[in-house]
Amino acid sequence: MSVSLIVLAAGKGTRMNSDLPKVLHRIGAAPLLHHALQAGLALDPAQVVVVTGHGASQVEKSARAFDDGVEVVLQAEQLGTGHAVAQAAPLLANASGDAIVLYGDTPFVRVETLQAMLDARAHHAVVVLGFEAADPGRYGRLITTGDTLDRIVEFKDATDEERTITLCNSGVICAEASVLFDLVAQVGNENASGEYYLTDIVALARAKGLSAGVVQCDEAETLGINTRAELAHAEAAFQARMRDQAVENGVTLYDPATTYFALDTVIGRDTTIGPNVVFGPRVTIESGAEIAAFCHLEGCHISRGATVGPFARLRPGAELAEDVHVGNFVEIKNTVLDEGVKVGHLTYLGDAHVGERTNIGAGTITCNYDGANKHRTEIGPRSFIGSNTMLVAPVTVGRDAMTASGSVITANVPAEALAVARARQENKPGLAARLMDRFEKIKADRQKEKL
Amino acid sequence: MSVSLIVLAAGKGTRMNSDLPKVLHRIGAAPLLHHALQAGLALDPAQVVVVTGHGASQVEKSARAFDDGVEVVLQAEQLGTGHAVAQAAPLLANASGDAIVLYGDTPFVRVETLQAMLDARAHHAVVVLGFEAADPGRYGRLITTGDTLDRIVEFKDATDEERTITLCNSGVICAEASVLFDLVAQVGNENASGEYYLTDIVALARAKGLSAGVVQCDEAETLGINTRAELAHAEAAFQARMRDQAVENGVTLYDPATTYFALDTVIGRDTTIGPNVVFGPRVTIESGAEIAAFCHLEGCHISRGATVGPFARLRPGAELAEDVHVGNFVEIKNTVLDEGVKVGHLTYLGDAHVGERTNIGAGTITCNYDGANKHRTEIGPRSFIGSNTMLVAPVTVGRDAMTASGSVITANVPAEALAVARARQENKPGLAARLMDRFEKIKADRQKEKL
Amino acid sequence: MSVSLIVLAAGKGTRMNSDLPKVLHRIGAAPLLHHALQAGLALDPAQVVVVTGHGASQVEKSARAFDDGVEVVLQAEQLGTGHAVAQAAPLLANASGDAIVLYGDTPFVRVETLQAMLDARAHHAVVVLGFEAADPGRYGRLITTGDTLDRIVEFKDATDEERTITLCNSGVICAEASVLFDLVAQVGNENASGEYYLTDIVALARAKGLSAGVVQCDEAETLGINTRAELAHAEAAFQARMRDQAVENGVTLYDPATTYFALDTVIGRDTTIGPNVVFGPRVTIESGAEIAAFCHLEGCHISRGATVGPFARLRPGAELAEDVHVGNFVEIKNTVLDEGVKVGHLTYLGDAHVGERTNIGAGTITCNYDGANKHRTEIGPRSFIGSNTMLVAPVTVGRDAMTASGSVITANVPAEALAVARARQENKPGLAARLMDRFEKIKADRQKEKL
Repeated sequence: MSVSLIVLAAGKGTRMNSDLPKVLHRIGAAPLLHHALQAGLALDPAQVVVVTGHGASQVEKSARAFDDGVEVVLQAEQLGTGHAVAQAAPLLANASGDAIVLYGDTPFVRVETLQAMLDARAHHAVVVLGFEAADPGRYGRLITTGDTLDRIVEFKDATDEERTITLCNSGVICAEASVLFDLVAQVGNENASGEYYLTDIVALARAKGLSAGVVQCDEAETLGINTRAELAHAEAAFQARMRDQAVENGVTLYDPATTYFALDTVIGRDTTIGPNVVFGPRVTIESGAEIAAFCHLEGCHISRGATVGPFARLRPGAELAEDVHVGNFVEIKNTVLDEGVKVGHLTYLGDAHVGERTNIGAGTITCNYDGANKHRTEIGPRSFIGSNTMLVAPVTVGRDAMTASGSVITANVPAEALAVARARQENKPGLAARLMDRFEKIKADRQKEKL
Repeated sequence: MSVSLIVLAAGKGTRMNSDLPKVLHRIGAAPLLHHALQAGLALDPAQVVVVTGHGASQVEKSARAFDDGVEVVLQAEQLGTGHAVAQAAPLLANASGDAIVLYGDTPFVRVETLQAMLDARAHHAVVVLGFEAADPGRYGRLITTGDTLDRIVEFKDATDEERTITLCNSGVICAEASVLFDLVAQVGNENASGEYYLTDIVALARAKGLSAGVVQCDEAETLGINTRAELAHAEAAFQARMRDQAVENGVTLYDPATTYFALDTVIGRDTTIGPNVVFGPRVTIESGAEIAAFCHLEGCHISRGATVGPFARLRPGAELAEDVHVGNFVEIKNTVLDEGVKVGHLTYLGDAHVGERTNIGAGTITCNYDGANKHRTEIGPRSFIGSNTMLVAPVTVGRDAMTASGSVITANVPAEALAVARARQENKPGLAARLMDRFEKIKADRQKEKL
Repeated sequence: MSVSLIVLAAGKGTRMNSDLPKVLHRIGAAPLLHHALQAGLALDPAQVVVVTGHGASQVEKSARAFDDGVEVVLQAEQLGTGHAVAQAAPLLANASGDAIVLYGDTPFVRVETLQAMLDARAHHAVVVLGFEAADPGRYGRLITTGDTLDRIVEFKDATDEERTITLCNSGVICAEASVLFDLVAQVGNENASGEYYLTDIVALARAKGLSAGVVQCDEAETLGINTRAELAHAEAAFQARMRDQAVENGVTLYDPATTYFALDTVIGRDTTIGPNVVFGPRVTIESGAEIAAFCHLEGCHISRGATVGPFARLRPGAELAEDVHVGNFVEIKNTVLDEGVKVGHLTYLGDAHVGERTNIGAGTITCNYDGANKHRTEIGPRSFIGSNTMLVAPVTVGRDAMTASGSVITANVPAEALAVARARQENKPGLAARLMDRFEKIKADRQKEKL
């Protein structure tokens, strides 16, 4: 049975106090929208429609970046959730099977929960995701009889008795696509806000003799983000979950509270992570690697036995094979380091490939940018790049080759050759003493002038 | 109506277990004394007198560094708070209007609270700042009748009934300056400690038929620092407040608990701050900037659209114009970077000015110090400084100029010129292989010797 | 009276989900085993026997690394704690005095507690360490009459009444060595698990008319580690204790929660530690030093008045004399810096000695490794190493000497001499403009091709 998703992502998020559309604020280095999409996409939906509004082009770009199969429709005016869902109708006119309505600012709904909603469709035409609220506050309440949902009542319309109900509405709804759009088309806006509420479809369905039911999830799953304080709180909740999971999976976190995961971070068993390590998107680490304190990793792969940091930065396209060592104050970008390569200190490697067992001396820099274009550096296996070698790309250093420290390498270096590009040293006897005297004198004169 | 401040800052702080005078211990990168002065100075006082004692010269220097209009008087012997206030009398002999007594080790009193005390002077000759203590412990109690303060009773002198009172004395007092000094002059030291207590002036005032009243503040405002544990606790409280305020102002803090604010940090809306960012004094950041993880910023200005870090250090005098990028392992000191300048990697710029859109290659260093004097480097707009360029100051690079990577620039470079200062590369065929053999042999011999 | 230790360290720690033997997981940068050994060694024992099993060779190596006087015996099969202790019998056949049984996965037992057990031996033949458990759960219970221990009952064998007892068994036991081994030899394995339980010796002792007693300690001391979550929890407990202790000793911790201590870190009074500082093993810091944010220190000594960081890494063998300054993005390894040396920026010093008051310019690198061997660099006092100097070791720079910035120093530099090794600068008029045009053209062509 196929399923489609409708993800509402049109809101401005006024209370965020931000120019950024609300669903693009980030948790775990990923926009809220990506969190919502990730759970939904795990269902392998036939179609995904994101309804945009405020910051539509930014939101569209972000949605497509996550999955380029996503379709986007603009809700030109924000007239309520029912109106938002209706915008998706033309794109889903031929959709068979069920549709689920998700929210771009509700990042934590689990795929298991969505699956439970689909399963519940066997018994009900409309399935609503509800939760037992510790403090129900102003949430809409779910009015049920047995396992049947009678209607959803907004807090402000609820009687005192109804307000004692703690089963609340998350807003997530599932129905056969055609039924959903039929119902939504009947929703009116005769209410205080003049908005079309998606929740009204439950009463409409029941009036048509259709059954409605509730699937319950943990309250934490339905957490919506409306303020930056809530965002910070949600980030903390996300991180806590990721940290617990990593520890359970056999990763050693020196101080879990200081490991910052991204939504898609993958770390193998018996890898150790020092304090203060930040993961950006797309990092995978195999088992038995060692990431020391103060590392910043993004878009990279680290293999078994590799050691990284402290104070290392791996940027997108950094690939470290087994037993590679990347040390302190080293930046690696778009560069493959083959097995056993060592890059110990104060180095920048960008757009490069380094063959196995090669040693990169301290202070080495790939001069990959000429002011307009980026160029590649190729270094063969078992080579020795001397300290402070400048590799002016495009350039190739062969296997088993060496560069003398302090050399600027502008031409290719053949295999087994030593490349030198530096001036001969000259010692000028007594000159240091005379220079220092002169500098000190200038300093003293300057002091006198000041007085 | 003019107001004067008397700030008591003579204490040694024995329980701090430190050689540093207590009021110079820091919260938010600023001495406790500066916190106390900041709230007071917001009243725009006619005179500010700091009473010093232990570490007098250090405290005086710190007070003047905060505001050079501050006057300082030495309390040679620490004979109590009443005695301390009396030391300020000669300096405030001609003061008209009110005087407020503050404490250098009580950093969190708010200016609104002080203003409320001044307002309350309309009804009372002496106004005392009190607070409802959650755990009154050994604080002095405020004995009141209606809105009138009868007297302050020290804990050890209090009856069991008086000890049930939870309204406590903060020590902050306001009165007309002349009245204050008259009363203080009458305070005696016939008590167990042999000290002159400022609090005694309430009873003295009442005895003379003068009215006394209480202004209440939150207990958190009156927090005094006596131990390092209390200091750490106060630092945490300060940081929590600053973090909440920043989030409320529309700043995105990735993990608020790891952003360390200074007393005077200013950050614009929609600026994002990664985890583990430390602010020293005098940092201002405009809206829409991006500070990545692991940055250390002090005395700098960052404009809209600029991106900084990770692993960047901005030191005093770093000024980043719009859209500047400062990347990893980069240190900027006393240097202006014009619009769009990029300094990506492993660079030290000190005492320099870089024109707009100029690109600074990885490993660039301004050699600004010759062992005795500091010199300036000027780089024009749209230039390209090759990787690992040494700029031996004083030196100027013109607009649209380039330096070849690995060059030591000791002479000025004209506009549009390319400066090169490096040796030609020579490849010595087979030499790397022979050298490595030799090195390995030495290593093997050494191993043998060891056995 | 001499004492011997038997430290049980044979367990696999299945629930750790790790290939590393349980007792080698770390707290405070030291294996759990070292924590256990440290408390025991403070008793100055005549013999220490570690009983290994899983990962025996790794555990043996770690034990000997901590103290090379430790003896090791293999428990080939894990047949219970009684069986484990029995393995130590041959090695302790001639031991006079008492033996204490400790656990390699129970890191926090204090030496004072062990001493109390030894003292209690005056009254009892067998002394067991117990604790009042907040939640006794499945711990074994200590059944006592007055100050006498009758027996230890395992939770699963306990009656409901016995389960209400909150005095629990830590497993730590003390007895005269010969008595201990006699009793252990009589322990049987007729129980559900078929294991030999050390705890059974209490009942055996009582049956022989020997007296048994209990010494109580705080529950926190007996914390055992069985899962990574417990490990993270124990690490947090350890760090909290170390932080409190440092603050009490007069160290200023900017944010205590972000200072990571090792088991053996020593810091003097009035030293200040910025946020996010990580200590590896063997760090000692004198009074009045200053460690800024983001530092990583291991195996180093820092003297009074020295300032380090931010972003500094000191590795084993770094010794900083008084008033040394090590600045940002600097790595120091196996190097002695004499009084007043300054190493401000972007530098790697390894296997070196720098004389007093010498200034090391930004970007300096000791090229200490030739691909096969490490060599030393010696720099005399009051010298000035220019920025980006490569010191190709083995090499010596004399006193009061200078190196020109950007020089590769391959030969010794005499005292007072200036060493230069660099090419002369040449400015090529207009070439930058022409080059940039060409680069831009290539870029434009490439763009066109893409379209």
